[in-house]
Amino acid sequence: MHELDPIFSPKSVAVVGASATPGKVGHDIFANILRGGYAGTLYPVNPRAKSILCVRAYPTIKEVPDPVDLAMIILPPQPALITVEEAAEAGVKGIVIVSAGFREVGGEGLELEKRIVSICRQAGIRVVGPNCLGVINPLPDIRLNASFSARMPAPGKISFISQSGALCTAVLDFAADRNFGFSKFISIGNKADVDELDLLLYLHEDPNTEVIMIYLEELRRGPAFIETARAITSGYRRTPILVIKSGRTTAGARAAASHTGSLAGSEAVYDAIFKQTGIIRAESIHELFDFADAFAYKEESALGKLKRKMPRGNRVAIVTNAGGPGIVATDMTVSSGLKLARFSSETVETLQRHLPETANLQNPVDVIGDAAYDRYENALSAVIKDEDVDGALVILTPQSMTNALDTAEAIVRVARGSNKPILCCFMGIIDVSPGVKYLQEHGYPVFNFPEDAAKAFGALYEYARWTNRRFLPLFDFKHDTQGAETIIQSSLAAGKTHLGELDGTGLLECYGFRVLPAKLAKNEIEAVDAAKEMAFPVVMKIVSPQILHKSDAGGVLVGLKDEQDVRGAFNQIVDQAAEFNPDAAIDGVLVQKMALPGTETILGMNRYPIFGPLLMFGLGGIYVEVFADVVFRLAPIDRNEARRMMHEIKGTRLFEGFRGKPKSDLEAIEKALVRLSDMVMNHPEISELDINPLMIHEQGKGATVADCRIILKSVEKA
Amino acid sequence: MHELDPIFSPKSVAVVGASATPGKVGHDIFANILRGGYAGTLYPVNPRAKSILCVRAYPTIKEVPDPVDLAMIILPPQPALITVEEAAEAGVKGIVIVSAGFREVGGEGLELEKRIVSICRQAGIRVVGPNCLGVINPLPDIRLNASFSARMPAPGKISFISQSGALCTAVLDFAADRNFGFSKFISIGNKADVDELDLLLYLHEDPNTEVIMIYLEELRRGPAFIETARAITSGYRRTPILVIKSGRTTAGARAAASHTGSLAGSEAVYDAIFKQTGIIRAESIHELFDFADAFAYKEESALGKLKRKMPRGNRVAIVTNAGGPGIVATDMTVSSGLKLARFSSETVETLQRHLPETANLQNPVDVIGDAAYDRYENALSAVIKDEDVDGALVILTPQSMTNALDTAEAIVRVARGSNKPILCCFMGIIDVSPGVKYLQEHGYPVFNFPEDAAKAFGALYEYARWTNRRFLPLFDFKHDTQGAETIIQSSLAAGKTHLGELDGTGLLECYGFRVLPAKLAKNEIEAVDAAKEMAFPVVMKIVSPQILHKSDAGGVLVGLKDEQDVRGAFNQIVDQAAEFNPDAAIDGVLVQKMALPGTETILGMNRYPIFGPLLMFGLGGIYVEVFADVVFRLAPIDRNEARRMMHEIKGTRLFEGFRGKPKSDLEAIEKALVRLSDMVMNHPEISELDINPLMIHEQGKGATVADCRIILKSVEKA
Repeated sequence: MHELDPIFSPKSVAVVGASATPGKVGHDIFANILRGGYAGTLYPVNPRAKSILCVRAYPTIKEVPDPVDLAMIILPPQPALITVEEAAEAGVKGIVIVSAGFREVGGEGLELEKRIVSICRQAGIRVVGPNCLGVINPLPDIRLNASFSARMPAPGKISFISQSGALCTAVLDFAADRNFGFSKFISIGNKADVDELDLLLYLHEDPNTEVIMIYLEELRRGPAFIETARAITSGYRRTPILVIKSGRTTAGARAAASHTGSLAGSEAVYDAIFKQTGIIRAESIHELFDFADAFAYKEESALGKLKRKMPRGNRVAIVTNAGGPGIVATDMTVSSGLKLARFSSETVETLQRHLPETANLQNPVDVIGDAAYDRYENALSAVIKDEDVDGALVILTPQSMTNALDTAEAIVRVARGSNKPILCCFMGIIDVSPGVKYLQEHGYPVFNFPEDAAKAFGALYEYARWTNRRFLPLFDFKHDTQGAETIIQSSLAAGKTHLGELDGTGLLECYGFRVLPAKLAKNEIEAVDAAKEMAFPVVMKIVSPQILHKSDAGGVLVGLKDEQDVRGAFNQIVDQAAEFNPDAAIDGVLVQKMALPGTETILGMNRYPIFGPLLMFGLGGIYVEVFADVVFRLAPIDRNEARRMMHEIKGTRLFEGFRGKPKSDLEAIEKALVRLSDMVMNHPEISELDINPLMIHEQGKGATVADCRIILKSVEKA
Repeated sequence: MHELDPIFSPKSVAVVGASATPGKVGHDIFANILRGGYAGTLYPVNPRAKSILCVRAYPTIKEVPDPVDLAMIILPPQPALITVEEAAEAGVKGIVIVSAGFREVGGEGLELEKRIVSICRQAGIRVVGPNCLGVINPLPDIRLNASFSARMPAPGKISFISQSGALCTAVLDFAADRNFGFSKFISIGNKADVDELDLLLYLHEDPNTEVIMIYLEELRRGPAFIETARAITSGYRRTPILVIKSGRTTAGARAAASHTGSLAGSEAVYDAIFKQTGIIRAESIHELFDFADAFAYKEESALGKLKRKMPRGNRVAIVTNAGGPGIVATDMTVSSGLKLARFSSETVETLQRHLPETANLQNPVDVIGDAAYDRYENALSAVIKDEDVDGALVILTPQSMTNALDTAEAIVRVARGSNKPILCCFMGIIDVSPGVKYLQEHGYPVFNFPEDAAKAFGALYEYARWTNRRFLPLFDFKHDTQGAETIIQSSLAAGKTHLGELDGTGLLECYGFRVLPAKLAKNEIEAVDAAKEMAFPVVMKIVSPQILHKSDAGGVLVGLKDEQDVRGAFNQIVDQAAEFNPDAAIDGVLVQKMALPGTETILGMNRYPIFGPLLMFGLGGIYVEVFADVVFRLAPIDRNEARRMMHEIKGTRLFEGFRGKPKSDLEAIEKALVRLSDMVMNHPEISELDINPLMIHEQGKGATVADCRIILKSVEKA
C-alpha cells in the first residue's frame, strides 16, 4: 500500500470539527462526504454534538471505536495541533487539514504548521494542506468527496492537482458542464507536507490516472522536480503532465547586474522547467481542458492494451463539410507547429471515387455541406491510411443534411482501424449534441471550435516530439577543475569579485573555451607593443570598474590594423570614457587580438534560489535586448538539451548559411553550452556570468570568447 | 427607406422553389420562415404544387396577387435567371439567391451570375448571394428567419455578416447556448451584388445594431473598404467592427523580387487594413463572441442616452474572491496591453475599512473566499472611484458563502454609478448561473474565465485608443512630380525597368529624400577620382544586373578612407563578384559617399491587386529577415499613420536613445514614410521599391538613403 492511499482511498474517514450548522465548513465537508455516497465508514468528531446529520458523533478522534484511515481536520490551528497529536496516537494513517491560519499568516501559524509536520513525519503520517479545499476520488469503489464542493465530478481518467482552492470549485463546475471525468482531485493548499512532486509520483503509479493536470503557482523543490517530472513524462509507461502556471513567483533572480539576469523574466525559470521536463503548458483553463481531453484518449489495441494514439509527425489531414471552418483550422494548424499533409495521388483518386465533383480533394478535404456520414467515412478512411498523414481533424458543421450521430459512429469505426490520432470538432452546441455525446462516451476528444482541436493536436505533437527525442552521444570533456578552483579562490581572497575579460578568460580557458590573447596597456606605447606581439588586427576596449557597458561609453574600437590606428584608438577611448563618466577610474585600455569573423551570440548564467543556475543562450549584439531572442535552461544540461536550445531561438537561421554566409560551427555552440553548464555546476562561487559575444565561426573553426563578465561570491561549502 | 430594407425587413416574402418535401432546401427555408413566426405575408412559389405546408402556392412570382418585397430564390441557375427577370417585372424590391452553381463553378455559372446582377442593377433591386445561407432578422416586429437554420436566434444588438454559410449555423447554435442575441444575421455567399461594404454602411445606420461582427475570407474592394470602415468606427455615432479573418486570400503579392514582397505574407494586407480602419481582430470564434459581449454593453446615461462605457486608459482594477484566478487575470491583463492600476492611499484606506484583515488591499484586491455581496460592493465602489483606475474586472468563484445573484446585483448597482467599464468573470457554469443570468439580462458582459474577461477588456482598450487617436498637423510637401514623371517615362522608354542606387536616387530626390553622391567607376582610376571628388570616407558596391543582393556576392565594402583603400576595394569587389557569378555582366563599381552613422531601417512598397500599394517599414540589416520586425500599411498614409507605424515595431526602442546612442530623428522617419506614400500614389509605374537601408541619424540630422531598388512597369493611363 502506498502511503498516500489512506488519503485518496480510505476505508474510514473521521471529520474532526464536523458541524450540524449548514454554511459552516465543518458541516459542508461532512455533508459532502455523506451525500456523495462514500463507500467506506464515516465518523463525525465533535465534543458538543451527539450526532451530526443523524450520524453518531464522537467527542475526540481517540474515542472513535474503529481504526481511522483518514482524518479531515476542520479546526483552528491550536486545536488542530492537539487533534494531530491524538490522531497519531490513535493510529490514523492520513490527514487532510482544511482550515487556514498557518504558514500563510506567518508567526505562530507557521510554527504550528511546522510542529504538525514534525509530529506526522515521526508517526509516518502524510498530511495534505493546511489551507486547502480537500480531496476527491470519484471512482465507483471509493466515491469520496472530502471537499468544499457540493458537486462530485464524474469518474474519469484525468487527475487534477491544484495549488488554488478557489480554482478547484470553478474547475469542478466547468467539468460538470463538459462531462469531464476525474480520477483524483486534490487541493494542496500550503503544501506543508504533501506537495505536487509527491502527488506526481503517486498519480503516475495510479492505474486509474492517464493524464495529470496541475494548476501551479510556485515550486519549492527545483532539481528534484525536474528529475522526477522528466522521468514521469518520458518512461515506457509514461504519464503526460499538463500545467497551467500563473504569474506569482518566489523565484526572483538573485541579481540583475548581468544581461542574463535582466533578460530572464520571472517566468524564464518555469518555462525552462517545463521544456526540460516535457510538461505541456496550457495558456488558459479552457485550453487545459481541451488538452486533457486529447491526452486522455486511449484505445484498446489488438493486444488488449490501452494505448494513447500519438502522431508520428506533424502532417495533419483535415476533413470538413464547410470551407470556412476548414480554413480556420488550417490557419491554426500552422500556428500550432503543424502542417497540412500532402496526399498521395492514390489517396486523391480514392477521394475522387467517393466524393461529389464539387468536393475539394486536396487537404483540407471538403466533403460539401450536404454530406451524410458515408462521405465522412470514406474520406477519413482514405486520408488516414495515407503514409504522409500523421493524424486527422474532422470538422462537422450542422447543415440540413447533417446527421451528427451517424457521422460520429462512422468516425469511431474509422478510428478503431487506425493507430493515428483523430480529433473531432463538432461545431455548435445543441444541433450536434447526439454526435458529441457518442464521441465522448467512446472516449474520443471532441471540440466546439476548429481552432481548439488544432491547438490540442499541436499539444499532442509537442509531446510526441518530447517522447521521441533523440539522444546524441555525449561530449567527454576533461576540464581543469583544479585550475579553475585556484583562480576563483585566489580572486575571492584578493577581494576581487568582478572578473572582466582580462582575468575572466583564464577561468573560461580551464573549461576549454577558446579565448583571445589580451593585454592591459597603460599608455600608447604599451598598447602598440601588445598589438605587435599578438599581430594585427586588434580590438581595444576601456578597462574601468565604473564602466560596465563599454560600448555605451564609446569604449570599444575594432579592426585596428596598424601602429597608427592603435595609437589613435588609445587616446580616443580614454577621452570618451572620461567624458562619459568623469569620475570613472581608468585602469587602462585592453588590447586584444581581433576574433575571426563569426556570428555574435550570448551565453549567460544567473543563479536562482531553489532552482540553481539558469543558463541562457541567444543572439548577441545590440539586438539581443530589443528582440530578446534568447532561451533558458536550468543546469545541468547535456548535449541533447544544448542542441535543443540552439534550435529554439529564431536566429538559428543565421547559423545555417544565411544570405551567402558560411554555415556556422554548430557543434561548437553545443560544446560551449555544455562547458558552461559543467563550470557553473562545479563552482557555486560563480554567481553570474555573461559571455558576450561568443563569436561562432564557420563550420570546423570553433567559437571564440570575445568578451566576458563573471561575478564571484563566496560560498560556505558543506 | 434604404434599398436593403426590403431584404432585412420585408412586408412580404415569396419563396421561389418552395417545396413540400422535408430535407429539401426549398422546404426547409420556407418552413423556417413560416414557423419562425414571420410578421409579414409569405407566398410559396412552385408550379407543381397547390399549396406548401398548407399555404396556397403560386406557379410563378408574376402570379402572386400582392406586391412582393423580398424574393427568396432556391432554384438552379438557369431557372433562377428567369425568376429574376420575372421578379424585376413584378416590381420585387429585394432578392436573396440561396442556390449554388454560379461564380464559384466558373464558366456558364459565372455568366449567369453576371446577367442576374445586370438585370437587378437596371431594375434597382439589390441581390444577396447566390450561394448563401440566407438572412435573419429576429427583431420582434419582423421575426424573419429566411435561412437554412432551424434555429431563430434571440433578438439583440449585434449584427453578424458571414462569408461562410456553414459557419453561420454553427454560430447560431453556439449563440443559442450563450443567450446571445442578434439584430441582423446575413450570409453573403458569392457577394455578386451586396457585399460586406454595403452591409457595413447599412448596419451602421441601423438603430438596432450596436456592434458588427464579420467572418471574412477575402475583400474585393480595397480602398473603398478602408475609407468606409474607418468612417464607421471613428465617427461621433460610431459602430465597432469585430472581425475574424481566415487565411484564404486572393491578394497574393504581384511579385516578390523585393524584400518587401517576401516579408509581406498574404496576411500583411489584411492586418494593415484592420489597423488602418480601427477594426478589432479576434483570433478565434470564441474570442469574437467574448469581444462582442463586451462591446454590446451600453447603459442609459443621466441624459437618457445609451452610452458604451470605454476605458480612458489601460489601468485595470481587479476584485476577486480567490487568489489563483486573480493571478491568471493579472497575467492576461499584462499580455493584453493593459496594466494593473495602482490605488491611491485613500482607496486603500477605504478598502481597509470594509475588508477583513487578511484581505489583500492592493491590486488585485482579494476579498477572500468567504466574501458575501457586500464586500464586493464596497471594494468595487472604492476602486472604481479611484482616479488612477480606468475600469475593473470582477472575478467570482463559487465558494460555500458565495451568493452569485446577490453579488451580481451589487455589481450592477456600482456599475450604474460609474462611467468606467466593469467586466465580470463568474467562474463555473452551474453554481454561478443565477448571477450570470442577472448580469446578462441587464446587459453586462460576463465571462467564464478571467483570461477571457481580460482579453475582452484589452479589445475595449484597443478600440478606445483608436477612437481617441491624436491628429498631428500634416506635412506640407512640394514634390517635384514632373521631374519624377520625366525620369520614369524616359527609363521606361529606354527599356530600363530596374533602377538601382545610381539611377533610382534621382527619382527619390524628386520626393525630397536625401541621397548620397555616387558615381559609377569602370576602373581603379575612375574610382579614386570619384572618391576624391566627394571626399573620403566612401563606400563601394558592385553594379551588375545579375547581382541583386550585393552583399551576398561580397560586393559591398564600407569605410574606405584613402586612395589605397579605394584601389584595393575596386579589385576585391570585382574579383568576388566574378567568383560569385561568373556569368554576371559587371557594369563597374559604384563609389558613394559614406553616410553619417545612424540606425538602419528599411522602407518598401509592393503593389497588390485590389488593394494597391502596400508600404513597409522596419529595422534594416540582416536581422530584418530573421526577426521580420516590420509593419505594413496601405497607401495613402498621412503623418498620423506614419507615426503609428514607427511606434509599432519592436525596434522602436533603438530610436529612443538606446544603450547610450543618441536619440534618432523621429520626424525624419515620419517624413520619409509620407514622401514614399505620396510618390507611389502619384506614379503607378513604380511597381516595387526597397529603400534599404534608410539611415536614420540623430535628432535634427535627418535620414539618408544609402541604397535603393526600384522596379518600374508601364501602366495604361486612364
